[in-house]
Amino acid sequence: MSGFAFELQTADGAARAGTLTTAHGTVETPTFMPVGTQATVKALTPEMVAATGAGIVLANTYHLMLRPGAERIARLGGLHRFMQWPGPILTDSGGFQVMSLAKLRQLDEDGVTFASHLDGSRHRLTPERATQIQHLLDATISMQLDECPPWPITEDASRRAMALSLRWAERSRRAFVARPGYGQFGIVQGSTFAEQRLASACGLVDLGFEGYAVGGLAVGEPQAQMFEVLETTCPALPAERPRYLMGVGKPADIVGAVLRGVDMFDCVLPTRSGRTGQAFTRRGPVNLKNARHKDDPRPLDAASDCPAARDYSRAYLHHLVRCDEILASVLLSWNNLWFFEDLVRGLRRAVVAGRAAAHAGDVLATYERGDLPPL
Amino acid sequence: MSGFAFELQTADGAARAGTLTTAHGTVETPTFMPVGTQATVKALTPEMVAATGAGIVLANTYHLMLRPGAERIARLGGLHRFMQWPGPILTDSGGFQVMSLAKLRQLDEDGVTFASHLDGSRHRLTPERATQIQHLLDATISMQLDECPPWPITEDASRRAMALSLRWAERSRRAFVARPGYGQFGIVQGSTFAEQRLASACGLVDLGFEGYAVGGLAVGEPQAQMFEVLETTCPALPAERPRYLMGVGKPADIVGAVLRGVDMFDCVLPTRSGRTGQAFTRRGPVNLKNARHKDDPRPLDAASDCPAARDYSRAYLHHLVRCDEILASVLLSWNNLWFFEDLVRGLRRAVVAGRAAAHAGDVLATYERGDLPPL
Repeated sequence: MSGFAFELQTADGAARAGTLTTAHGTVETPTFMPVGTQATVKALTPEMVAATGAGIVLANTYHLMLRPGAERIARLGGLHRFMQWPGPILTDSGGFQVMSLAKLRQLDEDGVTFASHLDGSRHRLTPERATQIQHLLDATISMQLDECPPWPITEDASRRAMALSLRWAERSRRAFVARPGYGQFGIVQGSTFAEQRLASACGLVDLGFEGYAVGGLAVGEPQAQMFEVLETTCPALPAERPRYLMGVGKPADIVGAVLRGVDMFDCVLPTRSGRTGQAFTRRGPVNLKNARHKDDPRPLDAASDCPAARDYSRAYLHHLVRCDEILASVLLSWNNLWFFEDLVRGLRRAVVAGRAAAHAGDVLATYERGDLPPL
Repeated sequence: MSGFAFELQTADGAARAGTLTTAHGTVETPTFMPVGTQATVKALTPEMVAATGAGIVLANTYHLMLRPGAERIARLGGLHRFMQWPGPILTDSGGFQVMSLAKLRQLDEDGVTFASHLDGSRHRLTPERATQIQHLLDATISMQLDECPPWPITEDASRRAMALSLRWAERSRRAFVARPGYGQFGIVQGSTFAEQRLASACGLVDLGFEGYAVGGLAVGEPQAQMFEVLETTCPALPAERPRYLMGVGKPADIVGAVLRGVDMFDCVLPTRSGRTGQAFTRRGPVNLKNARHKDDPRPLDAASDCPAARDYSRAYLHHLVRCDEILASVLLSWNNLWFFEDLVRGLRRAVVAGRAAAHAGDVLATYERGDLPPL
């Protein structure tokens, strides 16, 4: 579709540096998408999100269809205006949340009926309705509705879910209203079965999406299995389309996935951890609840450009966490998101410089070495 | 004390416009001090607080002595560095919180013993210790320890509390370590008894503080009684010293107090209300929980310079409040604090222009007229 473009600038092995151009602006890849579940990246203003360097945020169809409602957001001018994020927004299709949050699910060929986790009200999602909702939200990137199976799963059950997802992909694609600068991604399923992943990827590529996601990972499987799936799947996807690994992940997952050809990520980890006193740093995670920080005048990371990492003492952050102050959630979410954006920015620079693998090794070694020793 | 100065620029009737010069910067008065109870203005970063135009913030001796401890904050370089607020900080003496929060209080001539509301541990505050704690915190302005009696109170009980507060003022003053640009304020007590208020003010002025607070108000008495006390007390205080009305208040209280000669205010109202879905606007309070806002695309106040008031629809703010999102507390606290700072800024301009009373009338009339009609 015109106006929506992915330009591959450099590849270094399987790792890629690219540029995604959309109706709502341009994003350099690899990119990490902050999760704005209910039309807010939890605890952060849009200005704080933008300051981290995040170029595109994610919002959740499931949550927004229930509250405040897709039609309402459309009447209010769409999600960009609603949440004051003028940049690109990707919305998931709701499939994953229906499986993880909703009650009384009934899945059939046509779609899924479920009860809201908020008030028990009955709702139905079909590929067509999920696509329509994302259109109403004015999502820059829409996702097909898929069935996201649990892990582990039998080969047969996985095959059935993968095949259903592929049929839903076709219906989602037909329902998608093409507009310049907007795109829709198909989702590769097939659990850890290589042959199924390839069949799913081939089927989706035949349908022709603006990008491709790898779904059904980060659901409990070992990292090695996730990487194996990526090694199978990424080569089967067209080089000139962006690749999005859904719901991933830990810093080491992201590093390994970039090396295997993934361009886009999303995960609640930085903001969710930020609300429970955990800080991510170049030298690994830091638990600010720990009493070891209470007299520590050092910042989380003096070398960071993030005010939350650079300007406040660990003693102060510890105090805020212990007092259950909102500012603890604000500052730690900001620190964490900035760290994730720094991580993908650094990987991008390394790809461009042709030293992706070496850089990845350095990043992981520093991360594994752990936090500064106590004073 | 050299370096700490209050310059009275203009008076318009009893209303005053002044400039307070301190070791940590200059503040134009009338000024509203955001409350940073536990070394954080709840839900806001220091940058957001500064953006409202707030020039001086308040912190609480009682809370900080219990957690993280005054000696600890001193070792960490003082409260300014701890909370990343380089500007002036006023600390209360802890007396009010001991009366309102602590358990098992025992008051005697020498001081007060109490149990922490956090863990039941026993602590003692005396005028000397309260002054020392504020020194350790590096407070720009320290407050004397006083006994803050409830309202209503008998004349005799009030007289005893006022007299004790005066004796504690003397001991607080002796314990105060003078440093250039730092000051200490005495606190006028005497409930609603004019003769007691005058005796208290005279006694404090004899001791010679850098500023004077009016305490024991905003504890439930009618606004008319508060104003009467100010009309009695303010003329008894030296014109060349700042006057601080503690814990006040509602917008109309502030307007009326400025007209009666008060220069400084503090109140939890803007931030506390911001955490419960209430927004302050020029046209009165707005309860964003109310369903009337759920389709309203209008901002809280398009004419405000505050991003929270200007950029987000009421529908979005309603959504955030209903979802119990942290961003609701952040944006509404920001809006509210900005409104209070706008209020005192407007009053200052009016005093300088010689139209304080007319401006006050306009402000109150607009506020009373109420919110925009529904669409």
